Amino acid sequence: MAERKRIVIVGAGFGGVALAKQFAKEDVDVTIIDRHNFHLFQPLLYQVSTAVLSEDEIAYPIRAFFRNNKNVEFFMAKAEGLDAERKVVLTDHGEVPYDYVILSAGATTNFFGMENVEKHSFGMKTLAEATHIRNHVLHMFERASKEMDDPEECKRMLTFVVVGGGATGIEESGALTELVDVQRKEFHHLDFDQVEVHLLEGMNTVLPMVSPRLQKHTIKVLEKKGVKVHLGAQVVDYDGKDITLKDGTKIPTRTVIWAAGIKAVPFVANCGGQLNRGGRIVVDEKLQVEGLKDVFAIGDCAYFQHGTERALPTVAPVATQQAKTAFKNVMKLVRGEKDLETFHYKDLGSMATIGRGEAVVNRTKINPEMTGFLAWCAWMMVHLIRLAGAHTNFTVAIKWVWNFMSGTRLGRIITNVKD
Amino acid sequence: MAERKRIVIVGAGFGGVALAKQFAKEDVDVTIIDRHNFHLFQPLLYQVSTAVLSEDEIAYPIRAFFRNNKNVEFFMAKAEGLDAERKVVLTDHGEVPYDYVILSAGATTNFFGMENVEKHSFGMKTLAEATHIRNHVLHMFERASKEMDDPEECKRMLTFVVVGGGATGIEESGALTELVDVQRKEFHHLDFDQVEVHLLEGMNTVLPMVSPRLQKHTIKVLEKKGVKVHLGAQVVDYDGKDITLKDGTKIPTRTVIWAAGIKAVPFVANCGGQLNRGGRIVVDEKLQVEGLKDVFAIGDCAYFQHGTERALPTVAPVATQQAKTAFKNVMKLVRGEKDLETFHYKDLGSMATIGRGEAVVNRTKINPEMTGFLAWCAWMMVHLIRLAGAHTNFTVAIKWVWNFMSGTRLGRIITNVKD
Repeated sequence: MAERKRIVIVGAGFGGVALAKQFAKEDVDVTIIDRHNFHLFQPLLYQVSTAVLSEDEIAYPIRAFFRNNKNVEFFMAKAEGLDAERKVVLTDHGEVPYDYVILSAGATTNFFGMENVEKHSFGMKTLAEATHIRNHVLHMFERASKEMDDPEECKRMLTFVVVGGGATGIEESGALTELVDVQRKEFHHLDFDQVEVHLLEGMNTVLPMVSPRLQKHTIKVLEKKGVKVHLGAQVVDYDGKDITLKDGTKIPTRTVIWAAGIKAVPFVANCGGQLNRGGRIVVDEKLQVEGLKDVFAIGDCAYFQHGTERALPTVAPVATQQAKTAFKNVMKLVRGEKDLETFHYKDLGSMATIGRGEAVVNRTKINPEMTGFLAWCAWMMVHLIRLAGAHTNFTVAIKWVWNFMSGTRLGRIITNVKD
Repeated sequence: MAERKRIVIVGAGFGGVALAKQFAKEDVDVTIIDRHNFHLFQPLLYQVSTAVLSEDEIAYPIRAFFRNNKNVEFFMAKAEGLDAERKVVLTDHGEVPYDYVILSAGATTNFFGMENVEKHSFGMKTLAEATHIRNHVLHMFERASKEMDDPEECKRMLTFVVVGGGATGIEESGALTELVDVQRKEFHHLDFDQVEVHLLEGMNTVLPMVSPRLQKHTIKVLEKKGVKVHLGAQVVDYDGKDITLKDGTKIPTRTVIWAAGIKAVPFVANCGGQLNRGGRIVVDEKLQVEGLKDVFAIGDCAYFQHGTERALPTVAPVATQQAKTAFKNVMKLVRGEKDLETFHYKDLGSMATIGRGEAVVNRTKINPEMTGFLAWCAWMMVHLIRLAGAHTNFTVAIKWVWNFMSGTRLGRIITNVKD
């Protein structure tokens, strides 16, 4: 009898969890490696950063997925590289041997080499970063309310800048203006005319993946909500006090939230495969890493360009669709079959929420374009269904309805005060 | 016309918030000072530390209480002392002038001068501490599951010690055994026979405020849940690896949770009044600080001993009852009246939960003693009603029911991993 094969999955994002769930049903041993003990629902990070949801509503313990799968083990460690010769994953807690490994390690914030910007602004890819933003933004209001002597500094504290006109930047800047409205009711002596929310986008439009009509609609709604939208605004520097654009414009601000780009996690550079310019590991049409045996890669950390005009977007549906193909192909190899499947991406459309009661939805089956309240309901449904954990669906739904009706946000607590 | 009087409240615990809500309806200006921007529901801290509830379910933004009270301001700062001559509260963000000040600054953990113990064990008085315990305990399981070479160290990681047989210690140790049961289902390769939860109490019984019958019942239930209860066990040292008792016993453990004593916050020592041995500021029967003009003190930071055999317990009902008297007396002074009211404590009984479906309730109106499921339901009701925020009552109730029925805890996320 052949030995049970050891399948190792690096990263418990959308792709990694989808993979492990499929392998869990097979006669193989599965180890899933992640530096966090939870799967993070990244599309709702902006709601944690703006005090709508609690941390544990978008973070689900990885082990809880596999409670009934004794063949799945979780290994909490930071993956550091691959030794494809010896067939082990290298981690900060030792080596994990594999017969087949799938890299689904995701992406991190890309500051495009601007060290100053990286040092002083907030990324928004991890739970800790989202909590950090919440604490900081709330703190700015508290500090400004006590800053009586220096109006310039007060204004700087009350100016919030979001960089990047993709879904994250749109959602974050929209949600910030709503947070401002909540704060307005409770700071009885603060002049809210000073508060500004800016959205900076280097290109000449927002949301590149939706139609021009929806792009215009999005900008109109954002501006109506009070967001100052700057198109063609390229950031060149930020020293923690003033953000500088290419044309020389300076905006004084204590808060820059960077949602302007991502790159593959550095880990994949230590795996031995070929990288593209964005640092993503190149895979063939079967999702195998070119040049390495028994190594697959999917999702944000993988670069796939076969039969598509441009690289696939770094979104969850790509990762989960690739998880299916990678799973099938690994199982073919386990069974000794040769005819691996080719991956084809099926675009399911895209959506972004601009705030309470407003969203844009592009290219769905039902309707090519949707905006407004209906689009927002569709957005809520899609995100609620995909959240992990039955009781979370419930508490999140309650919070959204509560938030919509009462206009309050009870998550506005500052948790990083030194005791 | 007389100028509006400035009332300053130091501390937004049960007493401070109760005070501010009463003054809010009067023709006075109120400033409430706290180093946190939230009111903390301390009785449920142990549920955050054991991954039942989220942080923001027991923390309520202070400003949200006073949304409709324009005469109430919040001042986020750490109070550092009082200058009773100049009538200002000294803080790390400047001075706050008052006409009348009420100290409701609460208590902090008392390690009774044992520096080693203080350095290596976890207090459980703040939200950050509760989150810290959750992260640490969950981390111990993850680390133990990877610790294959050193069985002694593995055992040490899986031994959890709670010190103090009061309500907090009982609740924490009971909740820990339940957390262990949840973990057991998800660590497929860890030997759970190694896991131990200890409760150490220096005296010869637990829960001094309830009847001997309830004390025995509590110990019996705890032991049935798997808690090893040690009575007459006095801690003398803890170096982060082994906790040492007075009789020389050592228990190897990486986790000591200290719930064995509290003392008044150091701030009150800088207020100029007389302190008792526990560092609490001495008040007269009108709740005025002896020797200081226009200064009142209530709750855990105040020492009141008039017409009672011993000092009042450090519990929320004392603080909220004292808040009523202090409010009335300050308003009498504002109006120029002289006949201040004398404070009388009305003991409403006490309760503690020992775990899912089990609690003890002492000296209630309805029934002098209750145990078991009914007592647990009573405990839940009392705590739900007192939680601030209507939607929190709802989500917490859902979580408790979910927790009871499914035996899972979805809050088990480790949030302090360095990225």
